[in-house]
Amino acid sequence: MKILIVGGNGTIGKKVVTYFAQNYEVLIAGRNSGDVTVDISNSESIQQMFEKTGTVDAIVCVAGEAKWKPFNELSEEDYYLGFKSKLMGQVNLVRIGQHFLTKNGSVTLTTGILADDPVPMTASAAMVNGAIHSFVKAVVLDLEGQIRVNVVSSGLVEDAVEKYDAYFPGHNPIPMQKVINGYRKSVEGKGTGKIIKIYN
Amino acid sequence: MKILIVGGNGTIGKKVVTYFAQNYEVLIAGRNSGDVTVDISNSESIQQMFEKTGTVDAIVCVAGEAKWKPFNELSEEDYYLGFKSKLMGQVNLVRIGQHFLTKNGSVTLTTGILADDPVPMTASAAMVNGAIHSFVKAVVLDLEGQIRVNVVSSGLVEDAVEKYDAYFPGHNPIPMQKVINGYRKSVEGKGTGKIIKIYN
Repeated sequence: MKILIVGGNGTIGKKVVTYFAQNYEVLIAGRNSGDVTVDISNSESIQQMFEKTGTVDAIVCVAGEAKWKPFNELSEEDYYLGFKSKLMGQVNLVRIGQHFLTKNGSVTLTTGILADDPVPMTASAAMVNGAIHSFVKAVVLDLEGQIRVNVVSSGLVEDAVEKYDAYFPGHNPIPMQKVINGYRKSVEGKGTGKIIKIYN
Repeated sequence: MKILIVGGNGTIGKKVVTYFAQNYEVLIAGRNSGDVTVDISNSESIQQMFEKTGTVDAIVCVAGEAKWKPFNELSEEDYYLGFKSKLMGQVNLVRIGQHFLTKNGSVTLTTGILADDPVPMTASAAMVNGAIHSFVKAVVLDLEGQIRVNVVSSGLVEDAVEKYDAYFPGHNPIPMQKVINGYRKSVEGKGTGKIIKIYN
């Protein structure tokens, strides 16, 4: 199996790459480094990435940004940053990536617990996560029998606790092994349209 | 109580207006008609609407569009239509409307069952609904003690069955009285951050 991991150099991405690379052929796509580079907020950049990678069996996305700010400081533009990057970036990985996937190949997107259990300053970030959850449930109805699409939504991951703990009071850190298992379930399993929630 | 109902001339809006007008002062905002006109996809138009209405005790939105198309026919632009109208239109009613609401006044948004139980051709429409659900949960954390924000998410409403039944096979039509009760709960109740689901 050949797996393209977009955002393979990030906090979660690194661990996901380490696991999959033990068992499969892995291609890393990063913004500035990796086997291929990509700006997921730009659909042409995504198209160019796939033209370089050629056909793969699985696409995993652990990339995408959204603005964290108190609601009354979020500008309209701030919301559109999330729409372009974490939201449409991931949608475009499905739209464009489907043509570079083997039959029943999978796309695995990434969101997070904010969709269901947000914290302050996440009106935009939570929104983008919730959007992707509903998108995944809907899109598979139009792609049945062609490709699989799932999303991994985890709580505050252990490797990010130092940086983000103050923003997530009382949230239980999620061991990286559990996070990896979420991606395994999507890539190595047969499910589609699943929101794989890893909140405890 | 003075209630502004945006989209008060629509299928759901008409019934919501009929109920609230029996008990309160109601202002209807419509795209082309009503006590005030507004294009919710344009934040300046929203600002102008509120300058005309002045302070209100409740804002109810039953307006907003998103594109219905098979996933492989949805262009990037089609998604942005939903972002501008049903998504940011409703976000902007909170952003701008909060300054025209009495203390603990409410904003009631509208989504639908697609967020949780989509049908084909709704990758964009479902996404926008899911986005608003997570937005509502998050935004109230930043607005606590200031205003209330809830969303009514109903299934296929009885008054729309004739037009949409074929798209929602097996979905139980929701009696309009139940739908109205959802809006009552938000406006007349004290809850905030609630996704009021009326799916049966």
